[in-house]
Amino acid sequence: MVRVLGIDPGLQRTGWGIIDLTDNHMRHVANGVVTSTQSLTLAERLDQLHTGLMEVIETWTPDEAAVEETFVNKNPVSTLKLGQARGVALLAPARSGIPVTEYTPNAVKKTVVGAGHAGKQQVEMMVSTLLPGCQIHGADAADALAVAICHAQHAGTRALGLIGAGITAGPGRKYR
Amino acid sequence: MVRVLGIDPGLQRTGWGIIDLTDNHMRHVANGVVTSTQSLTLAERLDQLHTGLMEVIETWTPDEAAVEETFVNKNPVSTLKLGQARGVALLAPARSGIPVTEYTPNAVKKTVVGAGHAGKQQVEMMVSTLLPGCQIHGADAADALAVAICHAQHAGTRALGLIGAGITAGPGRKYR
Repeated sequence: MVRVLGIDPGLQRTGWGIIDLTDNHMRHVANGVVTSTQSLTLAERLDQLHTGLMEVIETWTPDEAAVEETFVNKNPVSTLKLGQARGVALLAPARSGIPVTEYTPNAVKKTVVGAGHAGKQQVEMMVSTLLPGCQIHGADAADALAVAICHAQHAGTRALGLIGAGITAGPGRKYR
Repeated sequence: MVRVLGIDPGLQRTGWGIIDLTDNHMRHVANGVVTSTQSLTLAERLDQLHTGLMEVIETWTPDEAAVEETFVNKNPVSTLKLGQARGVALLAPARSGIPVTEYTPNAVKKTVVGAGHAGKQQVEMMVSTLLPGCQIHGADAADALAVAICHAQHAGTRALGLIGAGITAGPGRKYR
């Protein structure tokens, strides 16, 4: 059994989702959103996100983590803001010794919905279908579960040795 | 006495500098650079920066921290990369309960050199002059000391009640 933590980073709202993968069968475990208080300073808000994510990791003890690669915004101030939240989102599992893989938004949508340019509602609907009976706490949590599903499916493929054989695409590129 | 930690964030090299401020007199304490290993994943590199900065904070126990506001790059990929490192740089003091103030690069240069568009060499030379006898470990550490000096000078001004009286400019804006 492999427990996967998916994270959808954002300064205001960071979605998270946990799923278990056993013999290519996925099971929903938990999902939610960590929020930060707008009236605080940026440093304090990043501390809130970090504390929230560390609590999720301590509670659910995932084995692996997956984070959506950020869509680089046309607005550089938004890109910077998101980058800061993303740094904190990547740090939390890394501090806990959990390997982190990154996936592009298109790779996530393609894996979950079957189309690279699916809308938010389509993603949420497919997540509900793939993880029957799970209560999803909003769009950010749905996105986080989608990243976890994407990682689980790639992990399943890896386990079967298909990626090594070049039959399917690998996980998203890793920043160096 | 107030001990100030200045940070100049970067994914490859994050500069840091510590100064003590007593009755408007500044004294150099220490400076250096935390680096990350290019061959590791982004998450692992951010963990290296975080560990290095936490070590600096535990060793030198600063009371306040100051971080340079990032110049938003024209290249969005660079902006995102820097944002991620910056998030981690802001988080380290915040996790330790140390208040963090942000200053624009222009505010730092204006305070240290007297001109908003000073070059890197000019900044390093003025830092050496303001903190006599200090050995500076490269341009990133010099920039970090410059941010600490900028904060110390604003703190001195604050202590005299000048900012409240509207006589001088306050610290850099805080992101919300």
